[in-house]
Amino acid sequence: MLTLHYNPLTISAVTAIVLEELEVAYSPILVDFSDVSQQSLAYLALNPKGRVPTLETPNGVLTETGAILEYLAALHGPHLIPEDAFQAGRMRETMYYLAATVHVNYAHAMRGPRWADTQLAWDDMAAKAPHTMATSLAYLEGHLDLDPFAIGTSMTLADPWLFVLTGFATRLHIDIAQFPNLSAHQVMMHDRYAVRGARNKGMLA
Amino acid sequence: MLTLHYNPLTISAVTAIVLEELEVAYSPILVDFSDVSQQSLAYLALNPKGRVPTLETPNGVLTETGAILEYLAALHGPHLIPEDAFQAGRMRETMYYLAATVHVNYAHAMRGPRWADTQLAWDDMAAKAPHTMATSLAYLEGHLDLDPFAIGTSMTLADPWLFVLTGFATRLHIDIAQFPNLSAHQVMMHDRYAVRGARNKGMLA
Repeated sequence: MLTLHYNPLTISAVTAIVLEELEVAYSPILVDFSDVSQQSLAYLALNPKGRVPTLETPNGVLTETGAILEYLAALHGPHLIPEDAFQAGRMRETMYYLAATVHVNYAHAMRGPRWADTQLAWDDMAAKAPHTMATSLAYLEGHLDLDPFAIGTSMTLADPWLFVLTGFATRLHIDIAQFPNLSAHQVMMHDRYAVRGARNKGMLA
Repeated sequence: MLTLHYNPLTISAVTAIVLEELEVAYSPILVDFSDVSQQSLAYLALNPKGRVPTLETPNGVLTETGAILEYLAALHGPHLIPEDAFQAGRMRETMYYLAATVHVNYAHAMRGPRWADTQLAWDDMAAKAPHTMATSLAYLEGHLDLDPFAIGTSMTLADPWLFVLTGFATRLHIDIAQFPNLSAHQVMMHDRYAVRGARNKGMLA
């Protein structure tokens, strides 16, 4: 049995969508950020990083969205990874860019204390975040297939991640309409079975 | 034939080490940061992100260290990925943490303009970077096997990446000796065939 520790406002929504897509049985546990549960001793014992998602598996705990998605695909959904090595490479190029650049750009809007100690620096980061985020989206708009999926004509692990992070961009008041292919991807993903399922279970805000 | 665009002071050293480990034929092209070659029109046509590494393959261009490493392992070195799905998950958990947290912490020491526009903010970030980097290393010291490799008893894709980023930490004057297992990993990797090969070819500073 799998247990997913999640918070619907966070990147853990990506893992929830993939679990719903694969129709794998799992037990969801809400990590309430309003009382800083992610920093409780019980939670830190599971995941010392104090972040979500955390996936409990029969073999132990896994963290990091990209690692969890690959694990789920290996066991339950190899069709979510392109068979061709180069196309699989493009999928992972997208996943790493989303994790290490796009999500990091977004985090500077409200997680300044991770990287600086003064209010002036936090305000500067927050002011710049919508610009770096828009630059990232422009790159993705030009680089990905989005025809209709990120890589090719069927869903891969990159799509729910792209969907959730593009959704985060709207929180920074970025008008997604300026990126027509990303906008169409948002519309398509919004009503996909797995996305509705995750939303109906409260795992995606 | 593969072509690797690299700079020896950067994370592209990880890809060089994996190419040397697999003894795959490749053509290296230096991207000279001293004249900002990574922002030249010719380079941006290959990689619009203006970063290294960029790998030219017979099928097209790949960027992002994690994607390139997985591609090389799929084609030439499946033994660099644990067979067991959970252990492979732990390897990728490490890779994503290195890419999206450790490298990002490091980058705040000298790449502040990516995320803020004022000198005050850049100075604040630079002052904090050694602390966030040390916190990351402490987590890795406690979490990884390092017995002697990051995951288990043979080298995986996580090891050259861990080696290079731990090396970056010394540039921030972090004393690696406080992390005995990471220190032993550094010593072991330093004289590995592939690491010496990459260094001798000028691909690793």
